[in-house]
Order: sequence, then C-alpha cells, then structure tokens
Amino acid sequence: MPHIDLPAGAPGILGPLLFRPETAGPLNELAEVLLRGDNSLTRGERELIASAVSQGNDCHFCQASHSTMAALQLEGGWDVVDAVLGDTETAPISPKLRSLLAIAGHVRDSGRAVTDADIAAARAAGATDVEIHDTVLIAAAFCMFNRYVDGLATLAPERREDYGALGRMIVEHGYVGAVAPPER
Amino acid sequence: MPHIDLPAGAPGILGPLLFRPETAGPLNELAEVLLRGDNSLTRGERELIASAVSQGNDCHFCQASHSTMAALQLEGGWDVVDAVLGDTETAPISPKLRSLLAIAGHVRDSGRAVTDADIAAARAAGATDVEIHDTVLIAAAFCMFNRYVDGLATLAPERREDYGALGRMIVEHGYVGAVAPPER
Repeated sequence: MPHIDLPAGAPGILGPLLFRPETAGPLNELAEVLLRGDNSLTRGERELIASAVSQGNDCHFCQASHSTMAALQLEGGWDVVDAVLGDTETAPISPKLRSLLAIAGHVRDSGRAVTDADIAAARAAGATDVEIHDTVLIAAAFCMFNRYVDGLATLAPERREDYGALGRMIVEHGYVGAVAPPER
Repeated sequence: MPHIDLPAGAPGILGPLLFRPETAGPLNELAEVLLRGDNSLTRGERELIASAVSQGNDCHFCQASHSTMAALQLEGGWDVVDAVLGDTETAPISPKLRSLLAIAGHVRDSGRAVTDADIAAARAAGATDVEIHDTVLIAAAFCMFNRYVDGLATLAPERREDYGALGRMIVEHGYVGAVAPPER
C-alpha cells in the first residue's frame, strides 16, 4: 500500500504525478526533453539507459515501463532489451552505447564514480559532449524517478504485459500527456 | 577539470545548465516548485533537507550552496544548519522536521529503504501527506542533482564564503533565473 493517499488505479509514478500536479509539470517535461527530444541518441537508446539504471536501482515499475518503451522503439525490440539487462558486455549494441551504459552505471552508484577512463572510452567510441551530458543526466534523473516511485511505496503491476498500454501511449503521445492514468 | 567542455566561470550545476538550456528549463522549474513554491514547510526547512541529502551524497557544491540558502532563510541561520549537518538527532529543530529528515536519509539510500515506521513517526509528529510527498521528492531530486553535478566533474569552490553571492541571488530571484552565471 502506498505510504500516502494517492489516487486509486494509477500505478507507479502516475499516482504521485496526479497527486501533485505542481511537480508533475517539470518532471514530465524533463522526461520528454531527455528521452524524446531532438538527439543524436535514438529514443530507444535513451529508454534503454533509463531501463538499465532502473534495473540497477531495483525499481520494478520504472524498469518494466521503460523497457517496454525501449522495446517498442528499438530495432531488435525485446531481444535487445533483454540482452542489455542480462549482460551489457555481450549485448548486440554499438560500442558507443555500451560505453554510455557504463557511464550510466557509474552515475547510478555516485557522480564521483565516473572516471576519466569512462569518458575517454566513450569519446573513443564516438560519443559527443552532448551525448555524454545527456547520458549522465538520464542516469541521474532515474536515480530520482526510481526513489520517487519506491520511496512512496507505489504499486507496480508484476507482468511485462501489463505495461504495454502505458508504453504505447507514451511512445505515441509523449510524457507530458502521461499525467493522465492509462486506460485500464 | 569537467568531463565535457562546459562554459567557463560557471561553478557546479551552473555549467551544465548553461551547456544544455533544453534540460535547464525543467530542472530549474522543479527546484523552484519544490524548494520555493507555496508549502507548509518553510523555504529554509526545504533547503535544509536538500543540504542534508547533498552532504550524504558527498556533493560539495550542492551541500555548500543549499546550506547557504538554508542559513539565509532559517531563523537561527548557520547555527541550525551546522547543528543538523553535525547530528540531526540533537539539532534544535522541530520533531516534524527531524522525522522528515529521517525519511529523506532513507530515500537517499534507496526508495525501498523508507519504512512504514518512518511514515508513522512523521505523521505522529504532525506531517501531512503533501509534506511527506515533498520530502521524498526533494530527497530524490537531490540524488539527481548531486549525480549531475559530480558525474560531469564540475568545479566547486571550496569555502563557504564563496557561495554567498549565489545564495543571495537565488533567495532573492529564485531558481528559474539561476541559469545565468553568478557575478564574479
């Protein structure tokens, strides 16, 4: 049961977003810019970073929902998502994305855990300053979203299939419209 | 030296905010609503939560800057800030704020670390659902801001005195104006 009296029928972050529209605005805008705005990283790649960080933080709602958004937008779909969540080192992704996922994993631990070697490896794989910046901020932002969702003990559907409708809604309409609960 | 080519002369988070105005917008709006918007928690109390979380995450820039904003806005000033950063249990603050700082400390560790007992203690001390929500989100947000600032290896002035001008600017004008670098 959630720690505070959240709107019923709105799983995960949707409950707190509906509970506090004043903070929902900038939170949704941040997700929209970071995960869907113009970028040399694809939407699928950015959702994959969000999903991997959420898995590391053991946040089921965020991991399941952003894995769904990643699978819907990545060439290779769930096969790529499952490979990355299983073992990033052997997953069928570009060396650049692998190096950015390594940075994201270090950010998840602590900002101070990102090393010069991490950055050099990303640059050697072709990453730009903006891509490095956005990877750091996506990873940092999911350290926020994960704690927000679990710190209020929100409810998360168990099965992957339960995230399909929400995922398709966000892929089609974006995060700014995601304050409204998904159709049940 | 920062990991990416950030604007010179802008310490801490100001560099990344100037580097990427697309994400600076929602980040500053989030800080403005959370730390300065209408609330039954005072601005000083909310800055104190931000400062304590930043200290826990060993983020010097965020700890020093938000301690300054807390000291400028709390009755008791630096004496209260230093007491809380030294030992929350014995600091001269209300039982409600002490209980909210305990929740924030658990959120910092992991969303899953917040217990029913934490919430019950906050309620017994008079905390409302909105105050509990905002405490969780402030703590979660600083787990983002801290990682953003340190994950890019931004520069942070060492001395407390170096944060006075920035602190006074934000206390007077708010976070949305903080994209501009402080006067040097």
